[in-house]
Amino acid sequence: MTANRPTAFAERMRRVQSSAVRDLLKYSKIPGIISLAGGIPAPDLFDIPGLLAALAAVTEGGDPEAFQYGMTEGEASLRAQIAALLKHRGISATPADILVTSGSQQGLDLAARVLLNPGDTILVERPSYLAALQTFELAEASIVSVPSDEEGIDVAWIEAYLSSCEVKAIYVVPNFGNPSGRTLSLERRKRLAELAARFGTYLIEDDPYGELRLSGAPVASIREIAERSPARDRVIYLSSFSKILSPGLRAGWMVMPEAVLQQAALAKQAIDLHTCSLSQRLIASYLADGRLWPRLAVLTAAYRERRDALMQALQRHLGDAICFNEPEGGMFLWARFAPQVDAARVLRAAIEAGVIFVPGAAFFADHPEHNTLRLSYSTIDTESAETGAMRLASALRTAYPEAIAR
Amino acid sequence: MTANRPTAFAERMRRVQSSAVRDLLKYSKIPGIISLAGGIPAPDLFDIPGLLAALAAVTEGGDPEAFQYGMTEGEASLRAQIAALLKHRGISATPADILVTSGSQQGLDLAARVLLNPGDTILVERPSYLAALQTFELAEASIVSVPSDEEGIDVAWIEAYLSSCEVKAIYVVPNFGNPSGRTLSLERRKRLAELAARFGTYLIEDDPYGELRLSGAPVASIREIAERSPARDRVIYLSSFSKILSPGLRAGWMVMPEAVLQQAALAKQAIDLHTCSLSQRLIASYLADGRLWPRLAVLTAAYRERRDALMQALQRHLGDAICFNEPEGGMFLWARFAPQVDAARVLRAAIEAGVIFVPGAAFFADHPEHNTLRLSYSTIDTESAETGAMRLASALRTAYPEAIAR
Repeated sequence: MTANRPTAFAERMRRVQSSAVRDLLKYSKIPGIISLAGGIPAPDLFDIPGLLAALAAVTEGGDPEAFQYGMTEGEASLRAQIAALLKHRGISATPADILVTSGSQQGLDLAARVLLNPGDTILVERPSYLAALQTFELAEASIVSVPSDEEGIDVAWIEAYLSSCEVKAIYVVPNFGNPSGRTLSLERRKRLAELAARFGTYLIEDDPYGELRLSGAPVASIREIAERSPARDRVIYLSSFSKILSPGLRAGWMVMPEAVLQQAALAKQAIDLHTCSLSQRLIASYLADGRLWPRLAVLTAAYRERRDALMQALQRHLGDAICFNEPEGGMFLWARFAPQVDAARVLRAAIEAGVIFVPGAAFFADHPEHNTLRLSYSTIDTESAETGAMRLASALRTAYPEAIAR
Repeated sequence: MTANRPTAFAERMRRVQSSAVRDLLKYSKIPGIISLAGGIPAPDLFDIPGLLAALAAVTEGGDPEAFQYGMTEGEASLRAQIAALLKHRGISATPADILVTSGSQQGLDLAARVLLNPGDTILVERPSYLAALQTFELAEASIVSVPSDEEGIDVAWIEAYLSSCEVKAIYVVPNFGNPSGRTLSLERRKRLAELAARFGTYLIEDDPYGELRLSGAPVASIREIAERSPARDRVIYLSSFSKILSPGLRAGWMVMPEAVLQQAALAKQAIDLHTCSLSQRLIASYLADGRLWPRLAVLTAAYRERRDALMQALQRHLGDAICFNEPEGGMFLWARFAPQVDAARVLRAAIEAGVIFVPGAAFFADHPEHNTLRLSYSTIDTESAETGAMRLASALRTAYPEAIAR
């Protein structure tokens, strides 16, 4: 009777379940608690009038196609709009190079299912996006963590590794990664593209946050850098409307070499047939109306204010007891207590004090750094930044009296 | 350089690509062609006013939650409505027993990923739903075809097989399956439930068409039969809003034992996080308004008329050259030419004559029966049924002059 044997699935998922993160959800619902733990875009910044206008345009006239089965590759209108959006990002892509996905999470899953056989090696940054690690675990890949610093993933380390080991793919979030908030330097992006071409390794470039730049100058995407080189056939570029428009509509996309796209479309057909027709048409209409660019200005102004408020409040209330770098965009501060401090222990005191955050250990595929933490500023205002930082200082004082000046 | 090696994925998908079916799409777009090849619900029967009223109710007031991230398990309002809908079907389930999926295609993928390890055996009916076969191939399962007759899958055959071989799961579409249109008898459903309990085998019961009953009396679902027995922990019940409301919204659901549901939710989190929030809320509102039941009366009346028109036209124009059984519901006639006739060859002549259908060979996991064909009546009217049947007769006459009376 094989049916009662734990499946390989159960074994794999046991390894990636982060009970710490799941439990945080219930604390976030306690009245009065300040959550710096969320990974969600601010709902007060959603362009509701714009979304409803686009919805009205799509459903006006009662075209049944908005409710009918669609092409696995995506609605033609949306693929055309995405190609235009990519041009703004410096990326040349035709609609035929684009696969619409059910959020960029599905892009990760499709990339994993098409590229990775069980046991294949994938390199990821330390720390890395938790749900990407889960997807690669689900694909039974061998995940190898690569050190990173303020300029992002350590490309010299990768070059040395590729010279001696077989690597199927490298996963990077080059703009304001979750959780690190770091931006991969142009120099390193160029070297990554060269390495991908030289070693025939796929580069999965995940870019959900690129347009949420709050300071500094934009850096060309790896996909753009690779366009005029043999690396072009090695870059899988993922992005999403979740952070710039609406996560609930579950729409993202992939730009891929033709052969990989054909396989990904075939897999998607067996996985969910296609992405919601109504969502796709709504987003295409929104983009066609030119509403995205003014909205991005509103979004980045608000996130800049929230980021600055949280940084200043942390500085004021925790001083040298916490360190972090200013992220140039996105939604996260990646912070660090003194080496002896376990952020999970601080979290227990913080829950009592009325503030929550994500201990950084969850974001490491191996050898977690227990003194790290991720702080999200997307949904807080100046007042909650202030109160949150004060409570965090108080929690640190409770858990580690010696780690913070009184 | 492993990157250029064909992946296991590419190998697997090569086996399941049905070029015949994919090519049909382009023929369906030729002006004047009559398509009996589609697997889509009739767009002229969509309840557009009802869908738009539900959408207006959901977006009225501009609640950003309709556009925000949601729970992986599904929106609470929709899970409650599904539980109520299931009660109408005779199934007792609480919202906690239900996982909302991105169409029931995703339910198949989740079941495969949670239950099946590579090499595990899954039993399927001969013939079986093509996209289910693709999903099980993607999971690298070993697919074993089980004979079936007019009462559905051969349960005595399954019992003998289970007695000597390890089987992880059995996949059945008990109501008006695609392509066979057959209904599994109550007796066989009961025996399947007993076998699942006795051998610890999972039963994947896929029921997208159950409410499209056009004649005959409803038969209890395997899930209902299993409820008061140990088989309860073995039945994975899948269904969908695609055939009764709208396929483009991509919403279906699974009812599962708790342990399987937890794993499926964990997998879904890594696969697409959750199903479109707007779709889920729209459908919940539609159901809460009580619109489904009157709409089902409209749908079944129309499909009954279309089914009868196609059966009569085939009888009139092809007579003994084709045989088929009256399906009690759903959207398909499963038909058969004389044994020496290859339906793929008839299709080539049919395209010339201006009618298309799906040769049945695509629906067999092995040993295809080349004289079979699937005819969909969902989108045709009396006139196109008549013309389509006439053209089909003419195509058969062209390809096999001896197989049809002049």
